Amino acid sequence: MLSARGIDYNAAPLNLSTLTNNSIFETWRPRAHVLPPSYHIGDPCMHYTDPRTGLFHVGFLYTSNTTGGAAGATTDDLVTYRDTNPDDVHFIVSGGINDPVAVFDGSAIPSGINNTPTLLYTSVSYLPIQWTAPYTKGSETQSLAVSYDGGANFTKVAQGPSIPGAPFGVNVTGFRDPYVFQSPQMDLLLGSAQDAWYTLVSGGEHGVGPATFIYRQYDADFRDWEYLGKLWSEAANSTWGDGTWAGRWGFNFEVVNAMYLNESGFDVEGDMFLTLGAEWSYEPIQPQVSDVREMLWVAGETRLNDRGLPVFQPSMAGYLDWGRSSYAAAGKLIPSTAKASQSSAAPDRFVSYTWLTNDFYGTQDFPIRQQGWDGALTTARELFRAVISNVVYNDRVQEIASWRVSRLNNDGTVELATLGQRIAREALHAFKTQAVKVISEPNSTIGNGQRTDLSFSDSLSSKHFLLTATLEFPLAARGGGSDVRAGFTILSSEHESTTIYYQFSNESLIIDRSNSSAAAATTPGIDTSNEAGKLRLFDLLAQDGTAYVEPLQLSIVVDGGVVEVYANERFVLSTWVWTWYDASNNVAFYHQGSSTVQFSDVRIFEGLVDAWPGRSDSSRPMP
Amino acid sequence: MLSARGIDYNAAPLNLSTLTNNSIFETWRPRAHVLPPSYHIGDPCMHYTDPRTGLFHVGFLYTSNTTGGAAGATTDDLVTYRDTNPDDVHFIVSGGINDPVAVFDGSAIPSGINNTPTLLYTSVSYLPIQWTAPYTKGSETQSLAVSYDGGANFTKVAQGPSIPGAPFGVNVTGFRDPYVFQSPQMDLLLGSAQDAWYTLVSGGEHGVGPATFIYRQYDADFRDWEYLGKLWSEAANSTWGDGTWAGRWGFNFEVVNAMYLNESGFDVEGDMFLTLGAEWSYEPIQPQVSDVREMLWVAGETRLNDRGLPVFQPSMAGYLDWGRSSYAAAGKLIPSTAKASQSSAAPDRFVSYTWLTNDFYGTQDFPIRQQGWDGALTTARELFRAVISNVVYNDRVQEIASWRVSRLNNDGTVELATLGQRIAREALHAFKTQAVKVISEPNSTIGNGQRTDLSFSDSLSSKHFLLTATLEFPLAARGGGSDVRAGFTILSSEHESTTIYYQFSNESLIIDRSNSSAAAATTPGIDTSNEAGKLRLFDLLAQDGTAYVEPLQLSIVVDGGVVEVYANERFVLSTWVWTWYDASNNVAFYHQGSSTVQFSDVRIFEGLVDAWPGRSDSSRPMP
Repeated sequence: MLSARGIDYNAAPLNLSTLTNNSIFETWRPRAHVLPPSYHIGDPCMHYTDPRTGLFHVGFLYTSNTTGGAAGATTDDLVTYRDTNPDDVHFIVSGGINDPVAVFDGSAIPSGINNTPTLLYTSVSYLPIQWTAPYTKGSETQSLAVSYDGGANFTKVAQGPSIPGAPFGVNVTGFRDPYVFQSPQMDLLLGSAQDAWYTLVSGGEHGVGPATFIYRQYDADFRDWEYLGKLWSEAANSTWGDGTWAGRWGFNFEVVNAMYLNESGFDVEGDMFLTLGAEWSYEPIQPQVSDVREMLWVAGETRLNDRGLPVFQPSMAGYLDWGRSSYAAAGKLIPSTAKASQSSAAPDRFVSYTWLTNDFYGTQDFPIRQQGWDGALTTARELFRAVISNVVYNDRVQEIASWRVSRLNNDGTVELATLGQRIAREALHAFKTQAVKVISEPNSTIGNGQRTDLSFSDSLSSKHFLLTATLEFPLAARGGGSDVRAGFTILSSEHESTTIYYQFSNESLIIDRSNSSAAAATTPGIDTSNEAGKLRLFDLLAQDGTAYVEPLQLSIVVDGGVVEVYANERFVLSTWVWTWYDASNNVAFYHQGSSTVQFSDVRIFEGLVDAWPGRSDSSRPMP
Repeated sequence: MLSARGIDYNAAPLNLSTLTNNSIFETWRPRAHVLPPSYHIGDPCMHYTDPRTGLFHVGFLYTSNTTGGAAGATTDDLVTYRDTNPDDVHFIVSGGINDPVAVFDGSAIPSGINNTPTLLYTSVSYLPIQWTAPYTKGSETQSLAVSYDGGANFTKVAQGPSIPGAPFGVNVTGFRDPYVFQSPQMDLLLGSAQDAWYTLVSGGEHGVGPATFIYRQYDADFRDWEYLGKLWSEAANSTWGDGTWAGRWGFNFEVVNAMYLNESGFDVEGDMFLTLGAEWSYEPIQPQVSDVREMLWVAGETRLNDRGLPVFQPSMAGYLDWGRSSYAAAGKLIPSTAKASQSSAAPDRFVSYTWLTNDFYGTQDFPIRQQGWDGALTTARELFRAVISNVVYNDRVQEIASWRVSRLNNDGTVELATLGQRIAREALHAFKTQAVKVISEPNSTIGNGQRTDLSFSDSLSSKHFLLTATLEFPLAARGGGSDVRAGFTILSSEHESTTIYYQFSNESLIIDRSNSSAAAATTPGIDTSNEAGKLRLFDLLAQDGTAYVEPLQLSIVVDGGVVEVYANERFVLSTWVWTWYDASNNVAFYHQGSSTVQFSDVRIFEGLVDAWPGRSDSSRPMP
């Protein structure tokens, strides 16, 4: 049977790039994610909660068929979204005096100029811009725009850029993505006026390394920003520790966000965390190419240097998302007074979205025109300061890593701190409560030969679901049983399947996409390479004094082509899986190796949500 | 008889603003001056001598019917000029990424980027800009352009402004007219690299006063310029001394030029002089209006302040031109190797032009469209360090003034230093040697009753001539005879006349224009108010030990509507005189008061020169 657009998802695909435009619009389209009605979504950015309405505005770079700029949506529940403008209408477009060439990422002061939402964004005058190439002076400046109509339009302030270029004498690799924030801690440290705004500008210095530059608000209208130096810099292409837990710092930072977190969420007295993108390449470095973009986080302390300027010193760092296509995270404080938070009784939170590129940053021949859209944002996540308690204080703890020891206990255990990440509570709640079908699997131990059929008890009729499960590995896996792999096979049929599993030997969560897409055989740009990330399961001390392996708690969101793997509230890997067949709906347990694995609390919530109830037609193809 | 354009210059004029476009194109058109074929000329700027050709390029802001930017001409003799481009073609126009709104004044590095002529000019992004109004951040930046075709076109360097805005935290009144120069003295003072380039940027600070900001070249390609502070600033609307000799500093500086002069001309080891425009208004200050623009000069010393930055301290200051319509002087070193200098055997010189506005900076209803052009540059002048010797050291010397005592002699005399100005030697020579008629009047003493007929012995047939004369006043004029006035009546007929005279009582050179134009009675915007400037004639000591009044040495250039009065190589007053009648050609002596005056060396050189032999048609009217 053919789809409404004449495509047969029960037969082997043609080369999809030969199809007419929009013919595969629905094939991998997510339902529950943030993306525009059609065309290209870029970096998330420019979010804010409007204090007058309590609505949270999620923004993103957006390019329609003719116009580049940014668009956005509002949400009162972090589940459903409403476009701030009709199709293909941006709230800001490039082409002004300050930004003749492009609008890049910015961030928002909710009550800025005249107490209206105010953007500080990167106004672009010259392209190309790339850390591998000499930097064109003045190509990136930071300019203001304000909205007087509830965020539907941002009017550029009729003056030159607030930050008219990189700091004098710094040969930058990049200078963009201003991220505004307030910080009583910074105010105190620097002797600033109360509630001063700061902005980070991301980039780096040729021959030196990546950095984030910090500026302080200088006047009530945000016209001028005072340069306070590099808040944080790293040596070019260096690593945190040996690089295992936080990749490479690369040559250029992008989208550095600043936040203060405690165990509940956002807290101005909490620890400072940054999320950041790091760009680098394998040798030999080719001009205009970043082979790798890594989406990282870092936490640390800020102190004054001998010139009285603030300097950030990391204490731990990790991946915000291990997916190679997941990048450019942008988050924002959502206060407890926001509408969503009032309904869910959430405290102040820092909620972040990453961008999931469809064509690997424009470098792959993905059939975008045939799809009629490309890219999406990942599910909203709450970031917080996570604590891992009762951890046995052994070699597995003592490492320059994505955690740090925050407390030594008398019983020989330690408390670890790290960055916590969880699906926004409202979205998680909605995925569960609005499911059209729930499949609950009985708890079972696999690997002891008792169970040979790894199928689930029921099957799905769609590719939109949340799968949750807890996997427990025996301590034996630390020894001879370390060849164990366990997880789930999803999006499976006789033609295709994807396996998501934890590989105990190298502490990796892997998404095996090698057989994930029948379309990959016919169509360029359908990536079926594997995705992987590192997650350490610590040894925990039970109340009875025995040690056990920290259970692996998985949440897998599958939404059309989007697959997000969350683990233990501190690991995320987001990617695409481009199954072709309608039948590729099956889910099964996966286990290999000599150790048993206990699976418990295994449930599937099918359906997710329609995040865009206000869109009259879910498919709005490109002309 | 009617002119070629149907105008009768023997009858009283109509209201000229009712005439068709270009109908009075020739009426006041100069022959020997720099101006474009038609349309509007603005500030002179961007001059340079091309080291490859030896040609001197004189530039100026230029607005044709549709396009704004700058145009120019070359000269190999400072007498005749050749347009660098055909009619209405600029060598740079506004409308680029850095200068979407306008191109303002700039200056040239003769061997700049890739050893080609390189402009640093003010790129304008927002208007209006005025010292009376809040400054729009980023409205004026300083950008680069280079020429690869001998100056016919300057290509903007594809990068952001070299100086992307005013210094941080300085609420400027203006920030424009970058003036580049080299200075071994400055190199030594600041420990700069040899032959570093510096640039002054003119402006001021709201609530503080006018200033010139200084920057130093930072890289070989002039991409970055290092801010070294305000080289010179004055309190808002303050004066040099009591203001008699150098007007008011006003609120905003414009077109500050820097030069080093000795008695011969330009000398890097000489004294530092600046020429500058000062803007101010009478109370109450109206937005967007400068009532007064003064064209000044200042000399002084530069020292380091306690932060190691250079600060200029004036020692004398004066008017570069006393004419109220004469402004925006721009000059340049012309090396002895330039073509013109090689012919005339001139040493290194600093040659400057001022702009002579036709409609008082756009505020008067002059019939511009009927004229088909507006504005001109004044005759090229050589600036030098002038010395006045054998000056009796009396009260007339001891003043905060436009001179300073540079030496005390044993005989009770002093030597004074001031800024010297003379008509460029080649032009002066050409005016004299290429005259179509020379009238020499016998020396005579007027005022003793012997001579009643003040007419000249011969008459002129045009309004293009140079008049030179020496007038000597008796010491008695210091006493009871101080009511004396003496000079010449020019451009005279039964209907019109203009008198240029020295009024001894208040040391003023006055151009009485009250009866200068029959057109003024019919046409708005024909200014017939008087022009005046101060010139002190010192008491000099003769070899026989007696004192006498310094002779007044006058040179008057009349070129169509342009009238320039030069006196004693240290006074210039340039203005317009808009006679109507063909017959208004007569010249006569002028004398009033009880002192005699001795006139000697009185000569008229009629004709001047055709400065534009390459222009196929001297009249190129606006369409």
